Amino acid sequence: MTKRVAVILAGCGVYDGAEIYETTLTLLRLDQLGIEYHCFAPDIEQHHVVNHLNQEVVEGETRNVLQESARLARGDISPLAELASENFDAVIVPGGFGVAKSLSDFASAGANMQVLEALKEALTGFRQEAKPIGLMCIAAVLVPRLFEDGIAVTVGNDPAVSGAISSMGGLHRSAGVEEIVVDFEHRVVTTPAYMLATRISEAATGIFKLVDRINEMME
Amino acid sequence: MTKRVAVILAGCGVYDGAEIYETTLTLLRLDQLGIEYHCFAPDIEQHHVVNHLNQEVVEGETRNVLQESARLARGDISPLAELASENFDAVIVPGGFGVAKSLSDFASAGANMQVLEALKEALTGFRQEAKPIGLMCIAAVLVPRLFEDGIAVTVGNDPAVSGAISSMGGLHRSAGVEEIVVDFEHRVVTTPAYMLATRISEAATGIFKLVDRINEMME
Repeated sequence: MTKRVAVILAGCGVYDGAEIYETTLTLLRLDQLGIEYHCFAPDIEQHHVVNHLNQEVVEGETRNVLQESARLARGDISPLAELASENFDAVIVPGGFGVAKSLSDFASAGANMQVLEALKEALTGFRQEAKPIGLMCIAAVLVPRLFEDGIAVTVGNDPAVSGAISSMGGLHRSAGVEEIVVDFEHRVVTTPAYMLATRISEAATGIFKLVDRINEMME
Repeated sequence: MTKRVAVILAGCGVYDGAEIYETTLTLLRLDQLGIEYHCFAPDIEQHHVVNHLNQEVVEGETRNVLQESARLARGDISPLAELASENFDAVIVPGGFGVAKSLSDFASAGANMQVLEALKEALTGFRQEAKPIGLMCIAAVLVPRLFEDGIAVTVGNDPAVSGAISSMGGLHRSAGVEEIVVDFEHRVVTTPAYMLATRISEAATGIFKLVDRINEMME
């Protein structure tokens, strides 16, 4: 049986969407391992649009998360509301500010964050079925908000974000960019990726390890 | 001395910009080989904006090629007008419809295509200095329009595009998705990438070969 993994996207671009390299490297490794994947994103307006040249918010412009995420999936993507955990063996959420701005409000609310209902439903489905869940970069903050207390995750070594994770009931473990943190009991795997990466090859090492570990956990 | 490669982008997304996977995989391989790179894109309006969910043109919306390309470069990008070939050892142009719509008008004009002046100046600089030039996917059509006749390139096996290449004076060689075509005399390397790829791992194989060959040719 071919293994199947759902990948959840938050737009297209580090400052207002899904991190492009993290997403591409995830899909590359899944495909290299012979794992089928399908991408999903919510059919909602982005929190805002950021000019990636100067990191300034573009006033008056709106973009749709599903349409922008479709760029990262070459059009082969479905609305997040259609993601049913029973059809997949695992789920992966790449990082990027879109996770903290459109999929949740962590970027503004910190430890008081709320998570988009469709994402909450999707991820809790995988958790209840004890299927492996991989999260990169800032996406690790979803874990203490959505799941039971005491699940180990990493975002690298950022004190503000790790502090927020702790205050939401999570267990933050410091890790390097080429490392992963695995919570075997709860089947959650995280890697810092572009919370720490200064080179794409560093990010690739951690991301490939995450996908490889998810692959092992599906067996 | 660290080798330096310029990468020229055409936006962000296969249907109206630079192909995202081709670009990311190029940057990954360059970095894995310890090659420094810098991205460039023209500061012009995109030919149009395509909704990547349904491939329809979005009427009334405009995007800037440099700003959208900045998403692919995590903000670290310069205007194409600032690219001077003397500062680099080679140049690579990933594919995507942006090359045929914004960097040139091949998508509408075919063999009668015109090339954006800034791109023409940049690429002819590398050609005159006999520095290696790598092009992926549809970007191979730039070669017969900009350079002397008889340079061998590939876009895979598409009859319309290979016919246009021939009629512009180029020499088209059929190739598989995991292959490259090397014109040693003129120092041009091409690979079909998403002209043929059905899986990201296939595209990666051809793209990694292209970057590896460019690396050898810089020695």
